[in-house]
Amino acid sequence: MQSPIAEPPALQAGTLRVTPVGGLGEIGRNMTVFEYEGKLLIVDCGVLFPEENQPGVDLILPDFSIVRDRLQDVVGIVLTHGHEDHIGAVPYLLKLREDIPLIGSALTLALVEAKLKEHRITPYTFDVTEGQVENLGPFECEFVAVNHSIPDALAVAIKTPAGVVLHTGDFKMDQLPLDDRLTDLRAFARLGEAGVDLFLVDSTNADVPGFTPLERDIGPVLESIIERAPRRVIVASFSSHVHRVQQVLDAAHAHGRRVALLGRSMVRNMTIAADLGYLRVPEGVLVDFKKAGDIPDDKIVYMSTGSQGEPMAVLSRMANLEHQIEVGEGDTVILASSLIPGNENAVYRVINGLTKLGANVIHKGNAKVHVSGHAAAGELLYCYNILKPKNVLPVHGEYRHLVANQKLAIETGVPAANTFIAEDGTVIDLKNGVATVVGQHDLGYVYVDGSTVGEITDADLKDRRILGEEGFISIIVVVEAQTGRIVVGPEIHAKGFAEDERVFDAVKPKISAALTEAAQNGVREPYALQQVVRRTVGRWVNTSYRRRPMIVPLVIEA
Amino acid sequence: MQSPIAEPPALQAGTLRVTPVGGLGEIGRNMTVFEYEGKLLIVDCGVLFPEENQPGVDLILPDFSIVRDRLQDVVGIVLTHGHEDHIGAVPYLLKLREDIPLIGSALTLALVEAKLKEHRITPYTFDVTEGQVENLGPFECEFVAVNHSIPDALAVAIKTPAGVVLHTGDFKMDQLPLDDRLTDLRAFARLGEAGVDLFLVDSTNADVPGFTPLERDIGPVLESIIERAPRRVIVASFSSHVHRVQQVLDAAHAHGRRVALLGRSMVRNMTIAADLGYLRVPEGVLVDFKKAGDIPDDKIVYMSTGSQGEPMAVLSRMANLEHQIEVGEGDTVILASSLIPGNENAVYRVINGLTKLGANVIHKGNAKVHVSGHAAAGELLYCYNILKPKNVLPVHGEYRHLVANQKLAIETGVPAANTFIAEDGTVIDLKNGVATVVGQHDLGYVYVDGSTVGEITDADLKDRRILGEEGFISIIVVVEAQTGRIVVGPEIHAKGFAEDERVFDAVKPKISAALTEAAQNGVREPYALQQVVRRTVGRWVNTSYRRRPMIVPLVIEA
Repeated sequence: MQSPIAEPPALQAGTLRVTPVGGLGEIGRNMTVFEYEGKLLIVDCGVLFPEENQPGVDLILPDFSIVRDRLQDVVGIVLTHGHEDHIGAVPYLLKLREDIPLIGSALTLALVEAKLKEHRITPYTFDVTEGQVENLGPFECEFVAVNHSIPDALAVAIKTPAGVVLHTGDFKMDQLPLDDRLTDLRAFARLGEAGVDLFLVDSTNADVPGFTPLERDIGPVLESIIERAPRRVIVASFSSHVHRVQQVLDAAHAHGRRVALLGRSMVRNMTIAADLGYLRVPEGVLVDFKKAGDIPDDKIVYMSTGSQGEPMAVLSRMANLEHQIEVGEGDTVILASSLIPGNENAVYRVINGLTKLGANVIHKGNAKVHVSGHAAAGELLYCYNILKPKNVLPVHGEYRHLVANQKLAIETGVPAANTFIAEDGTVIDLKNGVATVVGQHDLGYVYVDGSTVGEITDADLKDRRILGEEGFISIIVVVEAQTGRIVVGPEIHAKGFAEDERVFDAVKPKISAALTEAAQNGVREPYALQQVVRRTVGRWVNTSYRRRPMIVPLVIEA
Repeated sequence: MQSPIAEPPALQAGTLRVTPVGGLGEIGRNMTVFEYEGKLLIVDCGVLFPEENQPGVDLILPDFSIVRDRLQDVVGIVLTHGHEDHIGAVPYLLKLREDIPLIGSALTLALVEAKLKEHRITPYTFDVTEGQVENLGPFECEFVAVNHSIPDALAVAIKTPAGVVLHTGDFKMDQLPLDDRLTDLRAFARLGEAGVDLFLVDSTNADVPGFTPLERDIGPVLESIIERAPRRVIVASFSSHVHRVQQVLDAAHAHGRRVALLGRSMVRNMTIAADLGYLRVPEGVLVDFKKAGDIPDDKIVYMSTGSQGEPMAVLSRMANLEHQIEVGEGDTVILASSLIPGNENAVYRVINGLTKLGANVIHKGNAKVHVSGHAAAGELLYCYNILKPKNVLPVHGEYRHLVANQKLAIETGVPAANTFIAEDGTVIDLKNGVATVVGQHDLGYVYVDGSTVGEITDADLKDRRILGEEGFISIIVVVEAQTGRIVVGPEIHAKGFAEDERVFDAVKPKISAALTEAAQNGVREPYALQQVVRRTVGRWVNTSYRRRPMIVPLVIEA
């Protein structure tokens, strides 16, 4: 049900306005804007990674249009945790106003600062910890510990006289977490007893029945693989998964192996995590990559990036023999990561490549080497029952995830009318415990491509898809302005269509004849003549080849 | 380990030569050529569906080059079953010689005949059934029943004085199959006791631990969903999955619903299956689609194609509201199919779209509505132990599957040296129970695109990928032949790069300057001048936009 676009009414005094800007209908570019008494609070500002129908795009940003003209009203950006889909768009927003305060945990801020440094931005940051309460303009924010696949994640309760909102950020409820930092259900209970008027809750795994297995179950699997590995071990994971890296360090240490970190983001993030005390590096276990080659094969573990088959990351380069480390017979490669939908072909290409080189490749499909960072349906039920929110807005998910999460809310007793399936740009007003959809902004995708932001449009992507599927044929004809007589051409060039350009000899006389006829009928205008060429070539290629390449005619007057 | 290309030696008398032509290193385009005493027997001749890095391609065929010049030596094509990846390329091979006999079960032949009819080919066919033994030239072929996700699948034992080969085709070992037609392990045992010298065995699920669940477990799930569905039910599956359709017909019938078949291939295949007695249609259950609209919503089931998110199939069109059936609130959609790797995004787009329309979407991820048609590791172990083959050639799989299958063979006692990880084109000679790799043909991908076969090359696909990722910029300049003076241009046009062509105003003077300088230096040759334009524009776009679109310069002499 695509909501009709409707400008929301002016915000009434004493009302809280909640507008999800990104993350609804997609997994990525999470961003929510809260407005109260003329001030704006932003929660998260992440990027979305493109799908195969968005060719060439590097990143997709949230559409900042609803804050662009009100940047001075923004009291801060709360960052719930340090994943790209929550912090990746911060540099692009700060380019619009550099001194917007960033609020988050120590690790989250360290990661976003490292990212901003690459954009040559020094942000104004304010670090908080669980249990802390801070006033950001008219918003009283209480930060609550949550457990996720990166340390130091926070939920945030946002209190105004209009009501209390709890935003989980990304979370799961591992009951025996590796760092003993539980999702704080006592705080959820206390907030729930006091009354939560609107609950924004992570939907990623809402359609997965049951419970996410314990992180603790992964360590022994990794350890047993590393123990039995005859030669080198290469482990690939997300470069921010501190706990997974911790497990690898511990397993390597226990079996007398040293660990070399590979990949720029892995080295950067783990250096930050170790400096801040989130990663406990056993004495002497780390070794610089440059010196790792001197260590016997059965005494080394490489910890690398590339678990999603990213073509430029370490693991893909290894699979293509484009990396210094030449994987061979007896090596063990572990993909200790989830397989994000859409990446399957790329990941399987890497697995096939490494297997072909002789490696034993272990992944989620054949061993328990990863668990998800998001709460499954069973956990969400606990959450709803402890919190008993008045209204629920499922966030962080594709449409199917949002609907699955809504169903869980309803099953625990939230009235269906108080649950909202919203889209990016849906405007919800909250007052006296009543939440109401009051409007819908028309927000688009903002594409980052090379150094351009927002210049590539959906029309360009459509052109790219046609070009990518079918190639193009360009036809150049130079005509005499007065007579329409052909002076040069038709010259025909094609790419992605056929190797042998002699195939076009068949259509050249047709083009000349069509142009001559048009000229005889008094058609002189180059655009009109181009249309004649387009039709002639289009008909020919469609009839002869059953193909629809892009046809690019150019008639120039000389 | 890419085998070096090496022409095999001339085939010795009394030796059997086995050459897999397709299906090794990929799931698709299965084809194996057997040669003995100058005669060729082909087993299967299927197509491969393209991946996202083969844009615009419709189908990929096996490379027929090793049989192309020896068509008169081909004694027949044995088709193990009627799936596209086993029969889809038959029309393209028969276009080279129409009267090659096709040998297979009744259903397999009916399906390939329907396909050939579309290509206006009437084949010479010879139908066989399990247990039957036929001499095809010097090859004595014994056909063995196997169980798969389409009825009437056959394995084939090929006997020559050089030895006995067993080729499984695609199979699993459901011990309670819906049609009571078991994979004939008694025949496997008998063949094994007599001695199988080379075993070609389906690897698709070799890396899946355990056993494929029973088909029988799916029926009750479908029945319970259909029973409880408040309004219409739409079931999508592969259009050849007769047993799945049978389950839907039975479930619908049991709950007083009628069934309309949707999609050209679904209607065609089920008509064939019913005519031949493979599909038992309960009296009065089928209804023509045109009349289905008159039936109350809670009394109808639509059985459709499109379970892989194919954009032109019924289910995608429904999700986009481009189909006569407008899916809405209360409708139930069941994707009773596997999710083939690479199709995830397309399938999830369909699920999101249908959910958005209000449908309850049930799929393999949230209910037990499909099981695979291929033997998992546990089944393959049974198979190896019953058969005890002397040599093993895993077929039908990506590299990782072949290696997993090889490991299973070795674990059951086949000497590692007698197991072969081969590629398309690897030539294996068999004599006296000894199998030896004797050569490697250089076989490529043959792309079908529109009405062309083999004309689109890997170079074209590379161009398409660049065009699709980055778009192109074309620059046209007309120069005076004698002086090199610019007469018209530079005219610049771009697609997939930027909407606003004014961005190119910045580079036009650079092009003119570069051409003028080249002309002053005596450069006159259009190709050389084009290179000047390419370098100038390439440098500009890379520096200014960090992008690498295809640059198509054209310098014309007037």
